[in-house]
Amino acid sequence: MCKTIAFLLLFNNMKKRLLSGVKPTGAPHIGNYFGAMRQFVDLQDEYESFVMIADYHALNFIHNKQEMEKNILDVTLDYLGIGIDPEKVIIFKQSDISAHTELAWIFDTITTMPYLMRAHAYKDAEAKNAEINVGTFNYPMLMAADILLYDPEIVPVGSDQKQHVEYARDTAQKFNKIYGDTFILPKELIMKDVATIPGTDGQKMSKSYKNTIPLFGTDEEIKKAVMGIVTDSKTPEEPKNPDECNIFALHKLFLQGEQLQNLRDKYSKGGMSYKESKEMLFEEILALVKPMRERREMYRNNIDTVKEILNKGKEKAKSIADTKMNIIRSNIGVNI
Amino acid sequence: MCKTIAFLLLFNNMKKRLLSGVKPTGAPHIGNYFGAMRQFVDLQDEYESFVMIADYHALNFIHNKQEMEKNILDVTLDYLGIGIDPEKVIIFKQSDISAHTELAWIFDTITTMPYLMRAHAYKDAEAKNAEINVGTFNYPMLMAADILLYDPEIVPVGSDQKQHVEYARDTAQKFNKIYGDTFILPKELIMKDVATIPGTDGQKMSKSYKNTIPLFGTDEEIKKAVMGIVTDSKTPEEPKNPDECNIFALHKLFLQGEQLQNLRDKYSKGGMSYKESKEMLFEEILALVKPMRERREMYRNNIDTVKEILNKGKEKAKSIADTKMNIIRSNIGVNI
Repeated sequence: MCKTIAFLLLFNNMKKRLLSGVKPTGAPHIGNYFGAMRQFVDLQDEYESFVMIADYHALNFIHNKQEMEKNILDVTLDYLGIGIDPEKVIIFKQSDISAHTELAWIFDTITTMPYLMRAHAYKDAEAKNAEINVGTFNYPMLMAADILLYDPEIVPVGSDQKQHVEYARDTAQKFNKIYGDTFILPKELIMKDVATIPGTDGQKMSKSYKNTIPLFGTDEEIKKAVMGIVTDSKTPEEPKNPDECNIFALHKLFLQGEQLQNLRDKYSKGGMSYKESKEMLFEEILALVKPMRERREMYRNNIDTVKEILNKGKEKAKSIADTKMNIIRSNIGVNI
Repeated sequence: MCKTIAFLLLFNNMKKRLLSGVKPTGAPHIGNYFGAMRQFVDLQDEYESFVMIADYHALNFIHNKQEMEKNILDVTLDYLGIGIDPEKVIIFKQSDISAHTELAWIFDTITTMPYLMRAHAYKDAEAKNAEINVGTFNYPMLMAADILLYDPEIVPVGSDQKQHVEYARDTAQKFNKIYGDTFILPKELIMKDVATIPGTDGQKMSKSYKNTIPLFGTDEEIKKAVMGIVTDSKTPEEPKNPDECNIFALHKLFLQGEQLQNLRDKYSKGGMSYKESKEMLFEEILALVKPMRERREMYRNNIDTVKEILNKGKEKAKSIADTKMNIIRSNIGVNI
């Protein structure tokens, strides 16, 4: 529930299709970038790629017009900023494709209450607050619709999102049994090798731990976060163990091969302060972040272009979703 | 839940708008006609009238393509048959207007579980069957959307449907409080004078009591139902009390003034058998039903015309619903 960014990668073996859902619920950090966002850029040449801005999921948390508008725009800028090429990737808002909520309703009518009440997210949320909203309870059906409208065969997810795909598969199976073959049964592919990115305190980087380094922060904000990385109190002269150092763990995201080995040696030899290591890391982050920040800024100064991108995305996603929806409607018998 | 026909009349004082929802869940009987359907014909000149075929509500009970298609077509024919003029009344399928399910989702995100669990229909259904489906639980939100998309000020309903309007009003109020004035708060108008039509056993005519007289049955089916009306065992010669006679109760739907008084006298005097009274009633029903059956048959032989009517209805309803939906979307912040 508290995830800044929930993401799904949906592959379709025939069409090589990849769809990712991103929640517009706040500014991304370095952990989001290396853990998930970067992959959208890496894979955009290989797949027919979609990035869905999951604003109708976010509506369970955001009840404010200005905040929602800002977050939708920000998340679009974030993805354009990291290098998503709008000529290659279809970026669209979930709320622009009415088939998502329509199919969620259809799934509601073949899903029992006890089954949906078994969802982890619901049980967790309810344990904390009995006044949980219906959308939070019902969201596995919207997510099943998000997935099944686009005919994926395999849905690669983090292990914490496994149940979403199970719900989608169960629901597809139930629907097919009642109305005849309509949906491919998607399989989850648990992505074990998605790196867990450590935060400034060594725990997983996460907003809830307040240990993040902002991806699109100012130089000052990034510097403040980096300088705040928790270390032991070894003096500059002392040899240090890189594998026990939170700074070094982050260096690993930026340095490879010889460069990384050189740094490792500097740690072991002693003579390098943590401050020095932090300053190096700061420069490494800036080298990554600066061009992305500039690209983001460029789009931010051309909001009409961004809106045009979202509109184009809407048309393309809508055409696929509506074609599928038409088959579904015909199979349930409402197309007469 | 077992209602063949749920109906709502929505008035908008400005536009004099009237919208009725009808569930496509089976053949109507005389009781449906006199209790509700007839009013749509009576009021079609006075109001901007809409008849919504509530197929997405019916999906909670009908999980069969052929049955759904047949029922949608049948209910359309039923309403055309009783004299709904498609030039005056907009007949449309709920499933053709995606704004209904979209708005239901939006309402889900501002509605708590405990609040929705207090709905009578849910509590009743759950008491009978724990495996109740999510759509049955969630349907007050779809019904709130059905109502609120069309800006009614007053919603005349039977007393058993009062809670639907309460849920719609509560939800409108909650939405307005969060996002600013968007919906008119509809008020229910309890229709106390809607006649309860007695069935062949004197109880309220209802499919669940198996005491119905079909509206569009064959002569034989209607005759069989009429001849089966329960009476006491008075001989033809004996005087009879019309106010204790199930046949007479039905005559009252067809005869007025002098005609009704004459029949009342015949009852009191004695000399008329119940069979004779039933035969008279049969003729009275036929006089009403025959022209409606012929009109229905005429449309049934011109299915393309019926589809054209539904298509035209879709375009008109969609234009109103989409205009409202656009305001709603803007107010929640997803129109950027």
